[in-house]
Amino acid sequence: MSIPKTMKAAILVEQHKPLVVDEVELPSSLDVGQVLVKVHYSGICGSQIGEIDGAKGEDKFLPHLLGHEASGSVVATGPGVKHVKEGDTVVMHWRKGLGIEGAPPQYRWRGQKLNAGWIATFNEYAIVAENRLTSIPTDSNLQVAALFGCAVTTGFGVIENNAKVRIGESVVVFGAGGVGLNIVQAAALVGAYPVIAVDVFDNRLALAKEMGATHCINAKTQDAQKAIEAIVGNQGLDVFIDNTGQPTIMELGYQITKAQGRVTLVGVPRKGNNIGIFSLPLHFGKVLSGSHGGESVPHEDIPRYQNLFNAGRIKLNELLTEVLPLDDINTAIDHMRSGQASGRCLIRMD
Amino acid sequence: MSIPKTMKAAILVEQHKPLVVDEVELPSSLDVGQVLVKVHYSGICGSQIGEIDGAKGEDKFLPHLLGHEASGSVVATGPGVKHVKEGDTVVMHWRKGLGIEGAPPQYRWRGQKLNAGWIATFNEYAIVAENRLTSIPTDSNLQVAALFGCAVTTGFGVIENNAKVRIGESVVVFGAGGVGLNIVQAAALVGAYPVIAVDVFDNRLALAKEMGATHCINAKTQDAQKAIEAIVGNQGLDVFIDNTGQPTIMELGYQITKAQGRVTLVGVPRKGNNIGIFSLPLHFGKVLSGSHGGESVPHEDIPRYQNLFNAGRIKLNELLTEVLPLDDINTAIDHMRSGQASGRCLIRMD
Repeated sequence: MSIPKTMKAAILVEQHKPLVVDEVELPSSLDVGQVLVKVHYSGICGSQIGEIDGAKGEDKFLPHLLGHEASGSVVATGPGVKHVKEGDTVVMHWRKGLGIEGAPPQYRWRGQKLNAGWIATFNEYAIVAENRLTSIPTDSNLQVAALFGCAVTTGFGVIENNAKVRIGESVVVFGAGGVGLNIVQAAALVGAYPVIAVDVFDNRLALAKEMGATHCINAKTQDAQKAIEAIVGNQGLDVFIDNTGQPTIMELGYQITKAQGRVTLVGVPRKGNNIGIFSLPLHFGKVLSGSHGGESVPHEDIPRYQNLFNAGRIKLNELLTEVLPLDDINTAIDHMRSGQASGRCLIRMD
Repeated sequence: MSIPKTMKAAILVEQHKPLVVDEVELPSSLDVGQVLVKVHYSGICGSQIGEIDGAKGEDKFLPHLLGHEASGSVVATGPGVKHVKEGDTVVMHWRKGLGIEGAPPQYRWRGQKLNAGWIATFNEYAIVAENRLTSIPTDSNLQVAALFGCAVTTGFGVIENNAKVRIGESVVVFGAGGVGLNIVQAAALVGAYPVIAVDVFDNRLALAKEMGATHCINAKTQDAQKAIEAIVGNQGLDVFIDNTGQPTIMELGYQITKAQGRVTLVGVPRKGNNIGIFSLPLHFGKVLSGSHGGESVPHEDIPRYQNLFNAGRIKLNELLTEVLPLDDINTAIDHMRSGQASGRCLIRMD
């Protein structure tokens, strides 16, 4: 099949504004290492909301496409592509997997250049670098598969690769969104106890409980620090995982973890939001580190997580709160911002 | 030989005051895992100056003995001791090695309890926990051996275990005292380049050059940041090692290291001296960590470092700036504070 001339896509034209859903033009051929994918379902991650809200400051790439976790089918492959083939069902992910890092595609919109990175998923089709794709069985659940692009792999990787949680350790997960809920699930999976979820939305906390949280704290109605200390008692807290990127919360984590505890930062801070810490505990074993997508290795991680899902050992359908068409993407984003969406919102490409 | 009834020791009676050199009483018998050692030479580490100056705030253990790197000879061993025996020449170290962690000794001074930890070395004799001793050949250089208790093992461990420096990486060592000079030496030893020493004393920088620094910066007469950037150029700085514990310097290190650079904190900050950092780079591979004695494992590290010294591959005699008797310990401490001592001052127990 040849490349369609145009497709519908959600475009970030201006920061702090709704996305513009419009027809955009695709290039007429695929370059080395590029793959044309028909997108089925895309998740919306907090990162995209950060992009819209200008969390990192001025955006030099406007206008551009966005989105970084999805499921799709391979329509055509460019020269040199070896790890996926036409007809493959794929997970689209932002972390690097196998194959060539083909150049970002040259889309156009209203006569101007439309930027996109190595992956963009809020669009009906996507020209993606080969190394952002991992083939999965064709009978895979396509909604759940989208979550393997980031929410699951990041969440599980945070526990395995960043915080390196050990049996019986106490874990606080501060912020129970799509990634946070998977962190909760992974913590429970590896035998952590207690697994304490903290959020400001009760519906998310209820879902966190379903995912394996042993204790839930609503930081709006409770003093989170006191509540955590009451739960962990004299043993102290082993691991604090921050999904908020808020300085006061990161500092709280640094303060309340025990001497050899770990603070793992997952939520990214807004530009200029510095944290203040007393560095001495770093000499005695406290660890403060940041996560980059849970350091996940997609082609190694996705198969083993999918096995677990197929065996009924992890819950992912429960995370799919809402599925909306691409035309309603701004509604979905609003639902995530307001907390109305407990888990992940998916965008369906019809 | 039985335990002497009294010995001369330097006592920290009051913070911010000179040490009091006086006779103190030893207990009449050794407990399980305790070892009586005749101390030969003790180094003075920045940590002891921090204790005297109250860097960590109020000291609840006054009056107490101090000192944590020395050479000595085993005079007698308590029940259960297996890893050292009477007549052994030993390195006395504060990091844990093999054997029992015998209880701290019960010294007395002027009718009151005199505290000491598992090791204290500013005294003619010492009752030390077995696991703070490592036997070395009896023909070892006893002055150099004292440095294996901390300065060498910490300095080398910082490079190997904390910063994990790789061939050809650029390293800044900020603060070139006894530990800093060994960090410089270890960086040169593992093929780092450039190895940039920064200090405020020219005599120390001259010694740093001798120990393998390829570039030296006097932070009093030069803008250290500009000078470092001029040396490393566009490649950026891989590793910044702070031996000062000063917030502005730690923050400088965090700022000027490259995206995947490491900041290793060795000097301990004064209580309340917090640092302010933007945590986002931690997600992308920047590492901020603290060292605890270079995470050294004395019984494994001391033999291989001593082999290197015997083979003439590392310089340690050069670090011995001054050797003074115990009665002059306050003079030695003054020389370290003022920068008059380029390397390590040793205290000789006659």
